[in-house]
Amino acid sequence: MLVNVEKETKLFGQSIRQNIRVTFNYEVHFTHNIFNLKNPTLAQAIASDGEKKTKKIIALIDAGLLEFCPYLLAQLTNYTKFYAEVITLAAEPMLIPGGEAAKNEPKLLEQIHQLIEAAGICRHSYLLAIGGGAVLDLVGYAAATAHRGVRLIRIPTTVLAQNDSGIGVKNGINAFGKKNFLGTFAPPYAVINDSAFLTTLCDRDWRSGIAEAVKVALIKDANFFDFIHAHTTALAHRDMDSMQQLIYFCAQLHLEHIAKAGDPFEIGSSRPLDFGHWAAHKLEQLTDYRLRHGEAVAIGIALDSTYSYLLGMLSHSEWQKILKTLAGLGFTLYVPELAEQSSPKNTRCLFRGLTEFREHLGGELTLTLLQRIGKGVEVHEVDLSLYKQAISLLREFEKQQQMLLKRN
Amino acid sequence: MLVNVEKETKLFGQSIRQNIRVTFNYEVHFTHNIFNLKNPTLAQAIASDGEKKTKKIIALIDAGLLEFCPYLLAQLTNYTKFYAEVITLAAEPMLIPGGEAAKNEPKLLEQIHQLIEAAGICRHSYLLAIGGGAVLDLVGYAAATAHRGVRLIRIPTTVLAQNDSGIGVKNGINAFGKKNFLGTFAPPYAVINDSAFLTTLCDRDWRSGIAEAVKVALIKDANFFDFIHAHTTALAHRDMDSMQQLIYFCAQLHLEHIAKAGDPFEIGSSRPLDFGHWAAHKLEQLTDYRLRHGEAVAIGIALDSTYSYLLGMLSHSEWQKILKTLAGLGFTLYVPELAEQSSPKNTRCLFRGLTEFREHLGGELTLTLLQRIGKGVEVHEVDLSLYKQAISLLREFEKQQQMLLKRN
Ligand SMILES: NC(=O)c1ccc[n+]([C@@H]2O[C@H](COP(=O)([O-])OP(=O)(O)OC[C@H]3O[C@@H](n4cnc5c(N)ncnc54)[C@H](O)[C@@H]3O)[C@@H](O)[C@H]2O)c1
Ligand SMILES: NC(=O)c1ccc[n+]([C@@H]2O[C@H](COP(=O)([O-])OP(=O)(O)OC[C@H]3O[C@@H](n4cnc5c(N)ncnc54)[C@H](O)[C@@H]3O)[C@@H](O)[C@H]2O)c1
Ligand SMILES: [Zn+2]
Ligand SMILES: [Zn+2]
Repeated sequence: MLVNVEKETKLFGQSIRQNIRVTFNYEVHFTHNIFNLKNPTLAQAIASDGEKKTKKIIALIDAGLLEFCPYLLAQLTNYTKFYAEVITLAAEPMLIPGGEAAKNEPKLLEQIHQLIEAAGICRHSYLLAIGGGAVLDLVGYAAATAHRGVRLIRIPTTVLAQNDSGIGVKNGINAFGKKNFLGTFAPPYAVINDSAFLTTLCDRDWRSGIAEAVKVALIKDANFFDFIHAHTTALAHRDMDSMQQLIYFCAQLHLEHIAKAGDPFEIGSSRPLDFGHWAAHKLEQLTDYRLRHGEAVAIGIALDSTYSYLLGMLSHSEWQKILKTLAGLGFTLYVPELAEQSSPKNTRCLFRGLTEFREHLGGELTLTLLQRIGKGVEVHEVDLSLYKQAISLLREFEKQQQMLLKRN
Repeated sequence: MLVNVEKETKLFGQSIRQNIRVTFNYEVHFTHNIFNLKNPTLAQAIASDGEKKTKKIIALIDAGLLEFCPYLLAQLTNYTKFYAEVITLAAEPMLIPGGEAAKNEPKLLEQIHQLIEAAGICRHSYLLAIGGGAVLDLVGYAAATAHRGVRLIRIPTTVLAQNDSGIGVKNGINAFGKKNFLGTFAPPYAVINDSAFLTTLCDRDWRSGIAEAVKVALIKDANFFDFIHAHTTALAHRDMDSMQQLIYFCAQLHLEHIAKAGDPFEIGSSRPLDFGHWAAHKLEQLTDYRLRHGEAVAIGIALDSTYSYLLGMLSHSEWQKILKTLAGLGFTLYVPELAEQSSPKNTRCLFRGLTEFREHLGGELTLTLLQRIGKGVEVHEVDLSLYKQAISLLREFEKQQQMLLKRN
């Protein structure tokens, strides 16, 4: 077992190569009314860990969700009583302000850590995070860093969280005015998507998550884009069947990318699914989070599609089809902050977002553009004057849309 | 590519099973005088990332080390100038108080994050952490959480950091009075062990790290224990050749365990190499960190070996051989805090350490005991009265040692 190092041997210049493989498994369940006593999904997910003891859980709940689901706390309590052999609540649920506020207030992170400590949560206990993407990102970060990682069950309650942010391997909070400056890669123990939660979403949040589906469809799957295009009106009018299919397809494509693109923790240079995101992140910040993430992504997609068109990569008809689909879904494709173009050195300049994007992901600048619908392509250089032109085109497009709306 | 979901199909009850494999590679180099301009180890380690651009690095240095190596900053600057094609210092090095203080002051974490932000460090830039295990644990945690993980090169400068803490996959800081309450699993980009740093260690820190070697030898490798036993005097008298071999063997065993025990991130129930550590962690805390980690581990090893003997698992002669080796290395095997045995409910009680140990690792209580030298065995129950007896035996043993010392 021991290397035979004789007394005289010099060790200088020696090295040991370490190779570590880590496997993560988790299931993404699709269900309806998760806390209905007849719905065993959650209890089964926890029981499937194979350990016999009753498991401690603590719940962390999006306060913005709770406004619309006043019975949630009582349902949760009943559920844990009914499944008392499997789970027990180790503390009162903690309410967390919903939306980006959750990720902008460092005190919340500390409070969750405190709760984990006070409730005696160990690496084999469970945190239940129930809420939108922002709350899940915060709780995920807290869970990943307490005891070097306690088990996290995500129960995403927005479209975006169910089809994108809640099913993946990332978490994070904002710091120094930068989105997700702090965070880790940490797969959840399980994810449970409950469509019943979606009924109470405001229109903006219902729509917002659709942007991520358009994103992944555009760079990965023309059929899926056709599905969205064909269901534009149904989706805009909150047809639940269409929405469920959209979420399932989108989740599937995201999961596949994470598992199969070869670099789930983005250690090397392989890219996450971030088409349209350089501008999106910057616009969220420039608008002081007046824009939802998905709303900003829709603009980012429109911008990078337009730029792809101006570069001669994307055809005129496909470009128009993309903008019209986004507009048909109800997205606004122009905001005044797009015109903040002073200088990339200036933090208030949109194009500063390119630098920040590069720094966050590391290495050389890499943007995804569109060759055609369903096919993304990576580039490493940008032409700012062409981007400025793209922004003018978007302003024009949005003006026309507004006029059309007024006429009808 | 798309699952064929007909409009009418119910998705409830569906689930997608996600399987993610992540591979981490890193090299542990053994060298001498890392910042000698003729020593390319560091520059090569960075150049081997295959990216052509000059890499930004920032250095974070143990202030306690710097006292003994006043030329370190100048050497580092010269080195980066000499290898300017590969690396460039993106900011002034940051000095970090050495020892456990580094892990007890949350402000330091924030300051490192601030520096990363200000210096524009991205996921493809490098943090160079130079120092003892405590500084490496803090910097490792900061590196793992900024941008979801920037690259970290660890340059451990104590025995313990070179043979154990600095070569593994864990980082962490203390919170709520608990050791390593916050932290993550995050393999480094590379580790460079420079034996030249060891010459300035005080005797306590020289000795302290040997405890981890005794630990891993006792549970994994009788030959290695024989090596330590045979070199007791040489090691106690700071023979550098013996120490280098000890570090190499010990690092090798640790790396092998991490890579091959099947669960490097301790997701399931497989155990880290933590023989003697339940008491060690508690004693560090009970003594307000008057004890070094390794000093506490030596006591923890002595305690759990004695308990193994009382349980009838370990033979009398092997038990004595272990205690005498530890004493011969210069370890004190009894401290008054061992007598704090009020009640496991009391945070000041030694046996409270069993609960805290279980909570930190999660799941059922699992202690490693000794069947014989070189062979650890796991148990899930403890007999506190037998542990109390073991503590009395240790007090006796230590009394005798002190008498022997006085006589000589
Ligand atoms: N981790 C990732 O991989 C990843 C990926 C994409 C986006 N994100 C992050 O996700 C966040 C956006 O998440 P989001 O779009 O879910 O919005 P959100 O979390 O900001 O929530 C929007 C609002 O909806 C409320 N809400 C939540 N569920 C509700 C429900 N069922 N009914 C009524 N109201 C409800 C919230 O309280 C909040 O006010 C951003 O911070 C973004 O950065 C993360
Ligand atoms: N991450 C892990 O897997 C892991 C494993 C074991 C231990 N640890 C942690 O490691 C820490 C202990 O580390 P340590 O034993 O290296 O001690 P340390 O980091 O506490 O350092 C001890 C002292 O030595 C000084 N020092 C460092 N290098 C020196 C040198 N070359 N010459 C002179 N002085 C020097 C430091 O300033 C400090 O004052 C504990 O916090 C422990 O929890 C972590
Ligand atoms: Zn997104
Ligand atoms: Zn240790």
